[in-house]
Amino acid sequence: MKISRIEAHEAVKPSRRLEGKWWDIRRKYGLTETASYGETIGRLMFALKVTTTDGLEGFSYGGGGVHSGSFGMGQLKGSDLNREQDIADGTAFARRGEQLRKAWERIQDEDLLNTEKLLPVVGGALETCLWDLKGKRAGLPAHQLVGGAGREWIKAYASSYTDVGSPEEYADHAQECLEMGYPAYKIHTYRCLDPRTMTLAGRNLASPDYDIEVCRAVRDRVGDRMELMLDPDTAYTLDEAVRVGRELEKLRFKWFEAPMNERELPERYRELRAQVHVPICGPESAPGGIHARAEWLRNGWTDILRPGGGFSEMLKCMALAQVNRTHCETHGGGHVKVQAIAAVPETVSEYYEMFLVTPGVEHLGYGFVPGGDPEFDKGRIRVSQAPGMGFSDPLWEYAVANSVRSFELNRT
Amino acid sequence: MKISRIEAHEAVKPSRRLEGKWWDIRRKYGLTETASYGETIGRLMFALKVTTTDGLEGFSYGGGGVHSGSFGMGQLKGSDLNREQDIADGTAFARRGEQLRKAWERIQDEDLLNTEKLLPVVGGALETCLWDLKGKRAGLPAHQLVGGAGREWIKAYASSYTDVGSPEEYADHAQECLEMGYPAYKIHTYRCLDPRTMTLAGRNLASPDYDIEVCRAVRDRVGDRMELMLDPDTAYTLDEAVRVGRELEKLRFKWFEAPMNERELPERYRELRAQVHVPICGPESAPGGIHARAEWLRNGWTDILRPGGGFSEMLKCMALAQVNRTHCETHGGGHVKVQAIAAVPETVSEYYEMFLVTPGVEHLGYGFVPGGDPEFDKGRIRVSQAPGMGFSDPLWEYAVANSVRSFELNRT
Repeated sequence: MKISRIEAHEAVKPSRRLEGKWWDIRRKYGLTETASYGETIGRLMFALKVTTTDGLEGFSYGGGGVHSGSFGMGQLKGSDLNREQDIADGTAFARRGEQLRKAWERIQDEDLLNTEKLLPVVGGALETCLWDLKGKRAGLPAHQLVGGAGREWIKAYASSYTDVGSPEEYADHAQECLEMGYPAYKIHTYRCLDPRTMTLAGRNLASPDYDIEVCRAVRDRVGDRMELMLDPDTAYTLDEAVRVGRELEKLRFKWFEAPMNERELPERYRELRAQVHVPICGPESAPGGIHARAEWLRNGWTDILRPGGGFSEMLKCMALAQVNRTHCETHGGGHVKVQAIAAVPETVSEYYEMFLVTPGVEHLGYGFVPGGDPEFDKGRIRVSQAPGMGFSDPLWEYAVANSVRSFELNRT
Repeated sequence: MKISRIEAHEAVKPSRRLEGKWWDIRRKYGLTETASYGETIGRLMFALKVTTTDGLEGFSYGGGGVHSGSFGMGQLKGSDLNREQDIADGTAFARRGEQLRKAWERIQDEDLLNTEKLLPVVGGALETCLWDLKGKRAGLPAHQLVGGAGREWIKAYASSYTDVGSPEEYADHAQECLEMGYPAYKIHTYRCLDPRTMTLAGRNLASPDYDIEVCRAVRDRVGDRMELMLDPDTAYTLDEAVRVGRELEKLRFKWFEAPMNERELPERYRELRAQVHVPICGPESAPGGIHARAEWLRNGWTDILRPGGGFSEMLKCMALAQVNRTHCETHGGGHVKVQAIAAVPETVSEYYEMFLVTPGVEHLGYGFVPGGDPEFDKGRIRVSQAPGMGFSDPLWEYAVANSVRSFELNRT
């Protein structure tokens, strides 16, 4: 099974509507002057199709992904189109195209079933296409190729946006999520809002005392009907992390994610783990890919692993967690995550992260086309049983119809 | 894909002929009084077939496996039929049957593609059948299901029997293996022969000074045309292991396998690794399965991992090695090993162990039927590209035709 053709598109897709409770809160605090209230904002997506000499097609999608939103002031200011330069000159697209051309030169005569051999060459987007193709070739969903744990549904947790509002407003949101069926809620803390003044603050804000108030308010509201997690996105010092962590113990939180910087001084995590008894989840941002996860586990810097990378790397991280009798909780959503989680038992990877849930705001992800996002129902995600990764055809059709830039490579 | 039928047979298969150079050496030292020279001795095999409701068949074979021979005085005394009690009353077969019946009760309504879910229930023989079925269902060899690294051939090392003879006789054997195309030779040391007297000794013999002589003689003979390994099968004390290990450094050995007891006092391995600079390979015999491998790596007790278990567990051990940037070298031979090794790059798992090679002795493995053993050619093993595990049909036919005991379970 060899490549005959690669086709790539960049398209603008709808991302989220600037209306609803979250934007009402923002307007209340005077933070949305630049936003066009009621407007649907856009985001760039990247779509890739690999066709084989025997006529199979493998897909992958990236950029402005499923349920995704990048942090940053741009969004608080009401603009998701914050990569104007990329849009104007196509820098990111050209960079991806260059990577694909290099990979193409090296792999066009290789058997596409040999994922492990091709991994060092192809990287993320093309790797997803290969697993999609392998599944279609085999007539099996990707999770069954590699061992399939037989979950039809995966529990989802509502992963909150940052800066939801006051502790009461966080609690309101958690309760809404509970009523939507979510069995768990992860708090992203204050990062742009300064909770002392409820005004816009800098990027690296840490407000541990206010974060504790949010955690208490949420636990108080939902009781034991939800599992709770906290993610301060590496904002705390060791002292702050210990202070918050001890409170999370009392509040019976399920995990404490990335409390401190993960790139520098990771030994502080050993000190933290010695002082607090709530499972640490990470690293997410440490450089070194899968090897960083191995190092963190070996050095006693974390409890629950958080994989980066694509399908293959997630599976290796899950194996690492399983053989060490700990857990691996994936980051963000989308079809590839669903297939990876479904490949292992719930005792290894328990949750799908619904990323990011915001009061009253409709995050469109790829859900603007049928099957664009994994199917959500009452706090659960359905595991696609279709061969391959479970992407929907209308998503590719949308990308082609709304393409702003494209290229193709053909076997001559 | 559900089970409709399980059929199991126990059969006596030919194992090896009691003739050739190794037996000549034995006779020279007066060790083969009880052997019937020239006779072909037998060994019990266990064959299992799982049939699915949609008519696919998955197989596995065990006992007296491919290229296998268990250690023990029985073989030196010329008898491979050393489980007389088992043969007489079928104890082992009954035990396996009981396990299969229990598994059958729990899994007959499960989807057989869900290997990860079924693993805790089914154990080794049935697990192999499931991967064989999954590959056949998908039309892919097992190594491609899980990522396939694209090796058509795997390098094989000649893994010597214990007690080959004098250092010169070991060197002769290594040279023979070199001439057969083997790129590497692993020395199993004196365990039953006492090299001081060349007479039969006890099971737990350790002869480190004589083992060093063997290593020197072999390196001297083959020069740098072969990679060399040493496996004393846990016979040494720490002091002996350091002494031998330092010699292996000078002799540029590739690895030093299981030098000391692995079940007790594993912390000694940390001391050994601090004192010698030759990669340690293990554990093979430590209890705890895949979790023991994780513990050994984490504690700095080993360099190269040695997996136990079936296909799934080997893959997890390989992932563990890969993410920790070390190696995983499998134990013994057979089709399942070939598929596992071929699933990862050569930088993770380099060699197939041809187990055990003995001067002038034909180890029959399952090679008495066409395709019974993986194809060997000039020191390499061919990776089967047939769907599933690559077992040959004549092997099942042999087991049925030579069955001494059998049972079946049918969906009613």
